[in-house]
Amino acid sequence: MLRVGVIGVGAMGTQHFLRIMNKINGATVTAVSDINEVRAKEVIAPFEGVRYIADPYALINDPEVDAIVIVSIDSTHEEYCLEAIKLGKYIFCEKPLSASAEGARKVVDAEMAGGKRLIQMGFNRRFDPAYEELKNIVVSGKLGEPLVAHCAHRNANYAPQYDDVIAVTGTAIHEIDTMSWLVGDYFVKAQSIFPKTSRHSKNPNLHDPQIVILTTASGMVINCEIWTNCQYGYDIRCEVLCEDGTATLPRPARVDVCTANTHYTGMTSDGLGYFAEAYDREFQAWADACNEGTFCSAAASAWDGYCAAVTTDAVLKSQKSGGIEEVPLTDRPEFYK
Amino acid sequence: MLRVGVIGVGAMGTQHFLRIMNKINGATVTAVSDINEVRAKEVIAPFEGVRYIADPYALINDPEVDAIVIVSIDSTHEEYCLEAIKLGKYIFCEKPLSASAEGARKVVDAEMAGGKRLIQMGFNRRFDPAYEELKNIVVSGKLGEPLVAHCAHRNANYAPQYDDVIAVTGTAIHEIDTMSWLVGDYFVKAQSIFPKTSRHSKNPNLHDPQIVILTTASGMVINCEIWTNCQYGYDIRCEVLCEDGTATLPRPARVDVCTANTHYTGMTSDGLGYFAEAYDREFQAWADACNEGTFCSAAASAWDGYCAAVTTDAVLKSQKSGGIEEVPLTDRPEFYK
Amino acid sequence: MLRVGVIGVGAMGTQHFLRIMNKINGATVTAVSDINEVRAKEVIAPFEGVRYIADPYALINDPEVDAIVIVSIDSTHEEYCLEAIKLGKYIFCEKPLSASAEGARKVVDAEMAGGKRLIQMGFNRRFDPAYEELKNIVVSGKLGEPLVAHCAHRNANYAPQYDDVIAVTGTAIHEIDTMSWLVGDYFVKAQSIFPKTSRHSKNPNLHDPQIVILTTASGMVINCEIWTNCQYGYDIRCEVLCEDGTATLPRPARVDVCTANTHYTGMTSDGLGYFAEAYDREFQAWADACNEGTFCSAAASAWDGYCAAVTTDAVLKSQKSGGIEEVPLTDRPEFYK
Amino acid sequence: MLRVGVIGVGAMGTQHFLRIMNKINGATVTAVSDINEVRAKEVIAPFEGVRYIADPYALINDPEVDAIVIVSIDSTHEEYCLEAIKLGKYIFCEKPLSASAEGARKVVDAEMAGGKRLIQMGFNRRFDPAYEELKNIVVSGKLGEPLVAHCAHRNANYAPQYDDVIAVTGTAIHEIDTMSWLVGDYFVKAQSIFPKTSRHSKNPNLHDPQIVILTTASGMVINCEIWTNCQYGYDIRCEVLCEDGTATLPRPARVDVCTANTHYTGMTSDGLGYFAEAYDREFQAWADACNEGTFCSAAASAWDGYCAAVTTDAVLKSQKSGGIEEVPLTDRPEFYK
Repeated sequence: MLRVGVIGVGAMGTQHFLRIMNKINGATVTAVSDINEVRAKEVIAPFEGVRYIADPYALINDPEVDAIVIVSIDSTHEEYCLEAIKLGKYIFCEKPLSASAEGARKVVDAEMAGGKRLIQMGFNRRFDPAYEELKNIVVSGKLGEPLVAHCAHRNANYAPQYDDVIAVTGTAIHEIDTMSWLVGDYFVKAQSIFPKTSRHSKNPNLHDPQIVILTTASGMVINCEIWTNCQYGYDIRCEVLCEDGTATLPRPARVDVCTANTHYTGMTSDGLGYFAEAYDREFQAWADACNEGTFCSAAASAWDGYCAAVTTDAVLKSQKSGGIEEVPLTDRPEFYK
Repeated sequence: MLRVGVIGVGAMGTQHFLRIMNKINGATVTAVSDINEVRAKEVIAPFEGVRYIADPYALINDPEVDAIVIVSIDSTHEEYCLEAIKLGKYIFCEKPLSASAEGARKVVDAEMAGGKRLIQMGFNRRFDPAYEELKNIVVSGKLGEPLVAHCAHRNANYAPQYDDVIAVTGTAIHEIDTMSWLVGDYFVKAQSIFPKTSRHSKNPNLHDPQIVILTTASGMVINCEIWTNCQYGYDIRCEVLCEDGTATLPRPARVDVCTANTHYTGMTSDGLGYFAEAYDREFQAWADACNEGTFCSAAASAWDGYCAAVTTDAVLKSQKSGGIEEVPLTDRPEFYK
Repeated sequence: MLRVGVIGVGAMGTQHFLRIMNKINGATVTAVSDINEVRAKEVIAPFEGVRYIADPYALINDPEVDAIVIVSIDSTHEEYCLEAIKLGKYIFCEKPLSASAEGARKVVDAEMAGGKRLIQMGFNRRFDPAYEELKNIVVSGKLGEPLVAHCAHRNANYAPQYDDVIAVTGTAIHEIDTMSWLVGDYFVKAQSIFPKTSRHSKNPNLHDPQIVILTTASGMVINCEIWTNCQYGYDIRCEVLCEDGTATLPRPARVDVCTANTHYTGMTSDGLGYFAEAYDREFQAWADACNEGTFCSAAASAWDGYCAAVTTDAVLKSQKSGGIEEVPLTDRPEFYK
Repeated sequence: MLRVGVIGVGAMGTQHFLRIMNKINGATVTAVSDINEVRAKEVIAPFEGVRYIADPYALINDPEVDAIVIVSIDSTHEEYCLEAIKLGKYIFCEKPLSASAEGARKVVDAEMAGGKRLIQMGFNRRFDPAYEELKNIVVSGKLGEPLVAHCAHRNANYAPQYDDVIAVTGTAIHEIDTMSWLVGDYFVKAQSIFPKTSRHSKNPNLHDPQIVILTTASGMVINCEIWTNCQYGYDIRCEVLCEDGTATLPRPARVDVCTANTHYTGMTSDGLGYFAEAYDREFQAWADACNEGTFCSAAASAWDGYCAAVTTDAVLKSQKSGGIEEVPLTDRPEFYK
């Protein structure tokens, strides 16, 4: 039974906590840390054997904690990862790995220096059955080489603080990791395009929707739309164009209703709910790997977290320049293959 | 240029009139008859060279009328057909061929006695591109022999006079002809099933929806739902189960809209509009055949009209008996092959 | 941690065993019984702490077994249920509850006599998210009262021993329970219809496909197709017709591929895989309820197992008579409400 | 009866000729011109009353020709239009209006000088029922203002001479006119992006697929993929993102077949067949307008042909520069409103 310490029980952290307590086989949470003590204690109250530990470093060092789940604010991920690496404890780290590409590089270097793969990044789509099927079809080669992908990442609404930076580091980052994993390539160029902005954009620093054009080392183009206030629901699209055909991510299976001169299908606005099965599988895979003392090869590594950080930096640069920017990435080190 | 006389310019007759005037190549209407003189004159007013002839027999016999379109009330179809056959003029007859199986047989016998195929029945679905594709797949044999078909014929609303009889002679009759054509077989048994009736059924003599189970000579079962007040739109379904797979009629191609936590597609309530392309093709094929002096082999013949009448009679009998009734049909005569 | 004893580790029993060991939170298997000792020991070999107990009664009575999962051959379910009821242990019983309606009644009576709800029937579709959404829409009433349902239950292939009896007791039984649950009603009439049989039916005692028409106490009709060798895949359909519209079960979400003048979507032939998520949720719900000492209200009870048995008996009678048969059911006892 | 002269009876010209002879009401072809006399005479042979006229100018000036259909090679469109304008005859001109933006401007100026709208451009999608529905939804405003459109224009295969220029002037030009019509705006910026090229591109001067990014005067972005050897079929996509939702062009309605562990839908490779209904409606509308002495307001005008030419020029410029290019267009003159 893997004993887990969770740092951060906001909306997503609470879901992760409950998931481990109620659905994951072979893992349990023994300690929780959060700057909001009241909330943290409410979250753990229904469960026996879960302690609140105010100091995240104390939690990481606690002898009854075998593995750490980091769901705290972005700026803290790097330091908690470094601390856990020092102790050789397993880490599940929500994106991003660090607030900067340099910070991400530090974590990668520390992990490599430690000689053991400890960090699983929370890029959940790698565990989504639909993305998994899509990747299998593309890598099977039966449609020939991939050339282009059209992606869309749409949220119904955003918090008021949402701006062009978060559109990239919090939203586009998912397409960056997923597409890189799906086609087994990394990015070398990035361009940001700003169309007319929706009246639903409340923040003057948010262009919405926006388009991000990414080019991989082999020349493939990822044509990615980011739309954070599409109003109508959470909606994730992906079509991969290969030389002999295309493969397209399905919409979720939902009941079709005929009524009032239409037939319609419900859509959720809940991004966490949309990928619930992917989250479950991601955490089960992590718990299984930790219990076996290995790293889940299907999961995103610290290196993937680093690549995402370097790529998002280039997109942010293009948002300002309006031009095509270089992504200074190199091939994956042996340690992460 | 085929000179057409139209008998009956109610809703459907007016559409047929306008179709010939505005869309059909090689045909024009020269005379119109209708018991409602005022309405008939309004319909023809915008067009030059179209006469109103009060007496349908005078219209049929008019020297400037080469071919007759019968869209008058059901009870008159038989007599107009017999008159036109006498003159050797081409006939487009809306279903039914006659109000009774005996009457339909009389028309068939008269046509056979005349020695020439003159009557094209208005079973429009035979000209619908989707049904045509469905039939092509089934008869290609690549899915093996057909075993069962599930059909649904749904209208949004019905006129108050609509009852269990019209549900069969006016509605189910389309499935009867279409399925018989699609699988190249005729019916030998019929059963009517009455589920709970919708509150939208205003007529105490209407069970709605209802199910009709038909068995063909070779043992295939047509499982057919008739629902005349489904409220939500005009909706036609058909799935054919063959030994190695199934083939299903598509929904019409309509725009998909994402909004307000759904994605939806419009549906029409207009049955005539739903099959507009089929009607166009049906009339073009009829005009072409008449101009060439032949019979359109894709179309329904008087024999098909007779078969439909015998089959609907058996369904009506089962509505009363609640049991499985025989359909007294035999194989198609050489004349109609 | 619920300690579970599993009786029967054939194909489905092994899946249930592995599910509890690998995916279910709060439960573990401590003992397994199977007439095939070699196979059973292979199944449990990779896991510590699981004993093989040859005698199922010994397993049921074992002090380290809190709850029983019955996946043995159909004829044994009744006796194992009765034994476990005697001991007040929780039971997860795969369908059917008994090989006969009388046997099922005995189990119901024993459970009621014991005064505690102990049996959860393995009708997994009640835990399928798509069926759940379908039921929610129907019971919400926003489409009005349900009138008819069209169902299809299709398997790609069947074992040679599959015959008309198993088509009902092993296959149609799922639609019987699911539709009864979905519309909150029970059946009063049943009719079996045999269309032309597929050449893929190897057993002279199997008509395939076949149609089962069921009428509920309130007059709703369930129009159900059973096709056990449709060749093309495992395929479950359900459309519920309500007074103001219809609701239809979706196909599973799978990638759409465009290639070679088609676009296609894969379908599975694996019925257990098709409903994998439903099985997971069903077992998690069962484990949670047992751990809390309650009965999962979403699940099928012994009473539901009894109703299914009485209904399948009537369908089998109609297979022989060719007519409409009564289903001798009454309203649900207070104990099971 | 409109008497039409057709210039050019290659693949598309022959289809247009046959369409007018067999399907269009109120028009007939009286003369045909083509540099290939043998072929032209074969095409007209089955029809009475159609003359072959070798010299296109003689055809345009022929007293039995009321209106001209121009389907000859692109470089000739401009001169034939100018000649017909001189005579005040109606013109149906396939795209492009001229081989250059300057030439297109000359035609526009000549038409304006003549004071009468004579030219209908063959931008057939404006008559496609699906695009029509899409436009109606967008301009209704119920989804708010349009912000972005994703388009794809895919052909199964291309002729060997197909290169980057034709990809724009022969293929992307359809999206350029259609989107401009659909959102009622014109383009001010254009960018061409070249992803990795498919191995199916036989021409070293063809990048395939390629992406064209167009910005309208109001800031809307059209994100358009051009893929001329996608292998799998003719496929046209369009999704319009509006502030409150999106609207998406449907796939054509085709039978769905379940077989061999898939369900699939056929796709055509025939672009002319794909839009057959649009071509029929386009020509019927043209014939009706000519017979009434008016211009069909739904159709593309010479001004639209000019706008398309200016826009394609800018895309071609970007193909060379790799950067974002200006499209030197201004608002529509009063004459064309």
